[in-house]
Amino acid sequence: MPRQITSFSNETVKRLRGLRDKKVRKGEGLFLAEGLRILAEARDSGMLPEIIAYSAAAGVHPLAAEIIAAAEARGADVIETTPDILSKMSGKDNPQAILGAYRQPDMALAAIDRAAAPLWIVAQALRDPGNIGTILRTGDATGAGGLILIDDSADPWSVEAVRASMGAIFTQTVASARWEEFIAWLREGPGQLVGTSLNTSHDYLDPDYDQPCFLLIGNESQGLPPSYEAECDLLVKMPMLGRADSLNAAVAAAVMAFHVRASWRNRS
Amino acid sequence: MPRQITSFSNETVKRLRGLRDKKVRKGEGLFLAEGLRILAEARDSGMLPEIIAYSAAAGVHPLAAEIIAAAEARGADVIETTPDILSKMSGKDNPQAILGAYRQPDMALAAIDRAAAPLWIVAQALRDPGNIGTILRTGDATGAGGLILIDDSADPWSVEAVRASMGAIFTQTVASARWEEFIAWLREGPGQLVGTSLNTSHDYLDPDYDQPCFLLIGNESQGLPPSYEAECDLLVKMPMLGRADSLNAAVAAAVMAFHVRASWRNRS
Repeated sequence: MPRQITSFSNETVKRLRGLRDKKVRKGEGLFLAEGLRILAEARDSGMLPEIIAYSAAAGVHPLAAEIIAAAEARGADVIETTPDILSKMSGKDNPQAILGAYRQPDMALAAIDRAAAPLWIVAQALRDPGNIGTILRTGDATGAGGLILIDDSADPWSVEAVRASMGAIFTQTVASARWEEFIAWLREGPGQLVGTSLNTSHDYLDPDYDQPCFLLIGNESQGLPPSYEAECDLLVKMPMLGRADSLNAAVAAAVMAFHVRASWRNRS
Repeated sequence: MPRQITSFSNETVKRLRGLRDKKVRKGEGLFLAEGLRILAEARDSGMLPEIIAYSAAAGVHPLAAEIIAAAEARGADVIETTPDILSKMSGKDNPQAILGAYRQPDMALAAIDRAAAPLWIVAQALRDPGNIGTILRTGDATGAGGLILIDDSADPWSVEAVRASMGAIFTQTVASARWEEFIAWLREGPGQLVGTSLNTSHDYLDPDYDQPCFLLIGNESQGLPPSYEAECDLLVKMPMLGRADSLNAAVAAAVMAFHVRASWRNRS
C-alpha cells in the first residue's frame, strides 16, 4: 500500500528531490521522469519506476493506478503526497500529478546493436540538456536506434533532458563514449559516419546515404573539431540562406535525420 | 563619453534590469540583446541600441568600441559597468561583456511585404520563448521573410527568445495577429497556407509547394485547432516512425522549412 507522506523532511521525499542533482543521480543510478504520459511510455517500453510519488488531490487516473500497482508488485517504494511536495521534487510550479524514479540503463557502446536500426544519432559535447531530449524525441520519430553522446556532455538523465524527450528517453538507446572509443567501435562493423559542417561544398541533399547511417552533430557553439570531421566518411553542409552561419544543434540533427529517412523512401 | 556605473541602484541599471519583465518591456517598447555577436548582427541589419551597458574588465573588443561609438553618436545612453551588474541584468552567471536595449519594431501584419520572401513561418500560441528564438534562427537559415505569431504567444522580445534566435531577431520580420485577422490579411494576396497535422494522409514529401508558402506550426502541446486546420490550403503529415506522435514545435518548423526550400531547388 502507498504510504501517505506530507512532510518535506521524509527520507523518500528528500531522495527524490535529490535526483535533480547530477552527482546524486550518478551515485544512485536513478533518474526522475514526470507525468502520466511519460510514465505510460516507460511502462509500454517495459520499464517501471523503483520509486513513485503521486498526488490524489485531483483523483488518480486509472492508467496511473495501473502503473502504481504494477510498480508496487515489483517492489517499488510508492508514496502518496501533496502537490506542494511534488512541486519541490520537480522544480516546477505546476507539477505533474505523478513522478517516478527509474534505474539508469547501461550507457556502454557495447549495449548498442547497430543492426537494430538504419539510423543512429551521434552528438559531440552537447551542453544543453533540452537539446539532448529534443534529439531523442526526433530520433524516436525518425526510427533511429538511439543517441551516442561523445565526450563531455550534458546529462541525458537530467529532468530537463527527460522532459524534452517526451518519453523517448525510454524508447531510444542512449550510450556515452570518448571519441577514440567510439571510432574504434564504429570501425569494427558497417556504418557510414556523416558529419554536418560548414567546411565542405557537399549539399546535404545530394549524397546517397548508407545504412546504418551515423549522423554526427557538433557542439552548440563550436561545431565539430577538425580532427573529428577528418574521420567522417562524408561531410555535408546545410545551405544557410541568411546571415547566420549555423543552426540550433537539435534543429540540425532533425533536418538531417528527416532528410536521410526521406532519401531512403524509394529504396527497394 | 560612457558613464562609469558601479551601483546596482543606478537608474539606467534598474531600467535595463527591468527589461527582463514582459510588462516593463511592453511599457518601454524596448528589449534586451546580449553579446557582441548579436549586437554586431543588429548593427549589420541597420539597428543600434538606445542603451548600452558594457564591462571593460577583459578589455573592449574593437567591434564593441565601434558599436558603442555609433550608438553614442545617435544619442544612446552608454554606461560602463561591472560584470556583476551585467550578470544581474542578463540573469546569467557568466554574462556577456556587452548588452544593448533596442526599440521593438512594429509587429502589425501591415509591416509584412509577402512578396519579399518565398517562405514565411506562422506559429500558433507558442508557449516557449526558446522555440520562438529557434524558429527565427531557422527562418534566417532557410531564407524565410519572418515569423507571424498567432493568438497568445510567448514574448519574442524576451531575453530567452532573443538569445535563442542568435541574432535572427534582427534579420527576420516579426508580426503578431489574432487568427481571424491573419486569415483576412492572408487572403488579400497570394499565399499557400500549409499546416502540419496528424489528421491527414498527405506525406510532407509529396506536394508541390507554392510561393509564397506560409508554414503553419501549432502550439507545443495541443497542435493546431481543427478550425485552423480547416482553413489551410494543404495539410501535410511528417511520418512518425516511433512511439511518439509529435515533434518539438521548433523541430517541426525546421524540418518543414528545409524541405520546402529543398523542393524548390530545381525550380526554373
